[in-house]
This record gives sequence, C-alpha cells and structure tokens, in this order.
Amino acid sequence: MTIQPLPAFEPPYVMAVFTNVRTADETGFAETDARLNALVQDNPGMLGYESARTPGGLSITVAYFRDHETLTAWRQDAEHQAAMKHGRAHWYESYTLHVATVERSHGYVRDA
Amino acid sequence: MTIQPLPAFEPPYVMAVFTNVRTADETGFAETDARLNALVQDNPGMLGYESARTPGGLSITVAYFRDHETLTAWRQDAEHQAAMKHGRAHWYESYTLHVATVERSHGYVRDA
Repeated sequence: MTIQPLPAFEPPYVMAVFTNVRTADETGFAETDARLNALVQDNPGMLGYESARTPGGLSITVAYFRDHETLTAWRQDAEHQAAMKHGRAHWYESYTLHVATVERSHGYVRDA
Repeated sequence: MTIQPLPAFEPPYVMAVFTNVRTADETGFAETDARLNALVQDNPGMLGYESARTPGGLSITVAYFRDHETLTAWRQDAEHQAAMKHGRAHWYESYTLHVATVERSHGYVRDA
C-alpha cells in the first residue's frame, strides 16, 4: 500500500492539530490508539486523522471533522476522555492543541 | 536542549498544515529548509513552524501566522515560491495543504 496524506476535504471543515513529545512510557499506547482509531471510523462526522513522529522528537497528529458539533461530541466521548487523562498521566511530556476552521485546501499527487 | 512543541498562541491566528510524502530525492532539501527557516525567523508576523516525519512514511509541517496578510506575503515570497516549485518537481510524491484560522488552543508541560 502506498502511503499518502489524507486528501483536501471540502471547506469549511474543522481541524485539530495535536503536537506532542512523548515520554518513554509506551505501555498501552498502541492498543488505545487502535481502539480510538476504530471509534473514529464509526463516526460519520469524522473525516479522518493522520500522524507523523520523528524518532526521539516531535509527534504531530491532525484530526479532521465535518463541523464543530462532531468535534465537541468526540471531546466528550467517555473512552476518548479516559485516554486523554491517561495520556497526560503517562504518555506525554508536553503537548499543544490547536483547534481551527479550515477555509481552503488543495492537494497534489505526482503522476505515476 | 529539550524538544518541545511550540506553545499555544493567542487566538485568533492562522495555521497552515502541510502533510506530505517525500520522494527519495533529498538533494538540496536540507539547505533549502535551513534557508526558509532563516527567512521565517526574520518575519515578525510568522509565529513559528514545526515538523514531524515518520521514517519511510508521512511528514507533517505546521506553520503559524499572526494573520492572513502574513501568510499571503509568505506565499508570494520569491525564494519560497522557487522552493515550492522545486519541491513539486523533485521532493514530494504527494502533499495536501490545509489553511485554517485557529479559534482556541491550549498546552500542557509535565512538571519537572
């Protein structure tokens, strides 16, 4: 499978950018990530999310939502809240969250 | 030096998220990146930028601007335009750009 960035969606949409540096504690992270990913797939107002992680450095996750209502519901989801709480206690050295409305977007894919 | 995500800025501000997959061609990339970084440092309306890159996978760069005017000027900068053109020709397999206005943000840093 070829890795590609998620495509440009139809504006306006909502984007949450989560930049973070992880602790050395990886316990439970992959399982929780997979579980949250499954929840996201089931939510029609969530357009998708994607991550990049520099080894030993910064991680950036970007989540895309159809509207603010979808984001609010996701923020209040009980499993997501438990994961955020656990993350602050164990997985994150530091993080910043930026919540924004996307006004324009475009994409490019090289010709094969 | 401890790596940290950039802090939450005072909303509203403008955020450009550039998600991409690179080609194998690294020629000139580091030099151009350093040069653009220097230009960004000199621009008072640019709040900063940060990147993460999964080896063999996705890269995400996020740039933060005080306002849309600063972003427009940066998009029109001649050196930046030359770099974007060269990037499409050589460095990027695929990319997506999302331009957004940040409405809220917050950060967390673990106690030492």
